[in-house]
Amino acid sequence: MDIPSYVTGFTDGEGCFLVLFSLRQKMKLGIEVRPSFSVSQHKRNKEIVLFLQRYFKCGSVRFSKRDQNYKFETRSIADIMKKIIPHFVSYPLQTTKHEEFLTFKKICQVIYANHHLSKNGMLEILDLSKRLNVSGNKKYNRQDLLRIVSKMKV
Amino acid sequence: MDIPSYVTGFTDGEGCFLVLFSLRQKMKLGIEVRPSFSVSQHKRNKEIVLFLQRYFKCGSVRFSKRDQNYKFETRSIADIMKKIIPHFVSYPLQTTKHEEFLTFKKICQVIYANHHLSKNGMLEILDLSKRLNVSGNKKYNRQDLLRIVSKMKV
Repeated sequence: MDIPSYVTGFTDGEGCFLVLFSLRQKMKLGIEVRPSFSVSQHKRNKEIVLFLQRYFKCGSVRFSKRDQNYKFETRSIADIMKKIIPHFVSYPLQTTKHEEFLTFKKICQVIYANHHLSKNGMLEILDLSKRLNVSGNKKYNRQDLLRIVSKMKV
Repeated sequence: MDIPSYVTGFTDGEGCFLVLFSLRQKMKLGIEVRPSFSVSQHKRNKEIVLFLQRYFKCGSVRFSKRDQNYKFETRSIADIMKKIIPHFVSYPLQTTKHEEFLTFKKICQVIYANHHLSKNGMLEILDLSKRLNVSGNKKYNRQDLLRIVSKMKV
C-alpha cells in the first residue's frame, strides 16, 4: 500500500477545506480570516484520525461530544503551507474537492504573504471564497463582509 | 499516485459493504441473500463513480433522483469474489470498515460455495451478518429471519 495515495483517497471522501471569517474589532480590517483543513470521523474510527495527525505531523485532534466525532484539524498557516498543501500538490485529489483545494491554496498563499492585512488582499480572499464550500462563511454572508472591508481605508 | 491505494482510501471513507435479505417464497429456504458493494457520491462527483466502475471492471452506475447521487454497485457474486474482494485483500482498509469487509468476505465465500442453499449455511450467514452494518437487514430483523430458517428442513 502506498500511504500518501491512501491519504488522498480518504481525504477526497472525508476531508474539508474551509476558510472561516469572523468579525474582530481589534483587527486592522475588522475581519479575521482563518483557513482550516480537517477530517472528522465517528469515534469508532479514532485510530485513522490519530494516524492522519501523525502522517501530516501537525494539527490537533479533538473529540466532539455532540457529534461523537474525532476531528483532526490544522489551522496554522505555516503548517498548512508547509505540510498540508505540498501533500495534495504531489498527490492530487480526484473529485470536485480538487477545485476546492486549489481555491483554498490560493487563499492560503495570500494569507501567508500577509496580503490579507490590506484591503485589496482581503477583497481578493472574499472573491476567491465564493468558490469554496458555503460552510466557510457560516457566521457572516459575503455581502456583509464586503461592506465592512470596502469601508476601510488601508 | 498509486491508484489502488487511492481507491482503498476513498472506499474507507465512502464505500459500503452490505448483505441484503429478502423473503422469497420461490426460494428453497424462503430467504434470498444478496451481497452488495457500493460507493455513492453527489452528482457533482459523477466522474469518480464512473472511474470506480472502470477500475473494478464490473458493476453498474445508477442515478438516484431522490438523493441526487450516483451509485456504483456490484451485486454479482462472481464479480465480488473475483474483482472486489481481491482488491481489498491486497490493499487493506484502515478503518473499522476493514472488520466489516472481513465479515462480508466470509459471507460471500459461503454464498459462492452455494452453502447458503442449506439451512446450516444460511444460519451461518445470519450469524455473521450480526457484525455487519445494520442497514444490511433493513426490511426484516434477524429474529424474524432466524425463525423462518429454523422452520425449514433442508
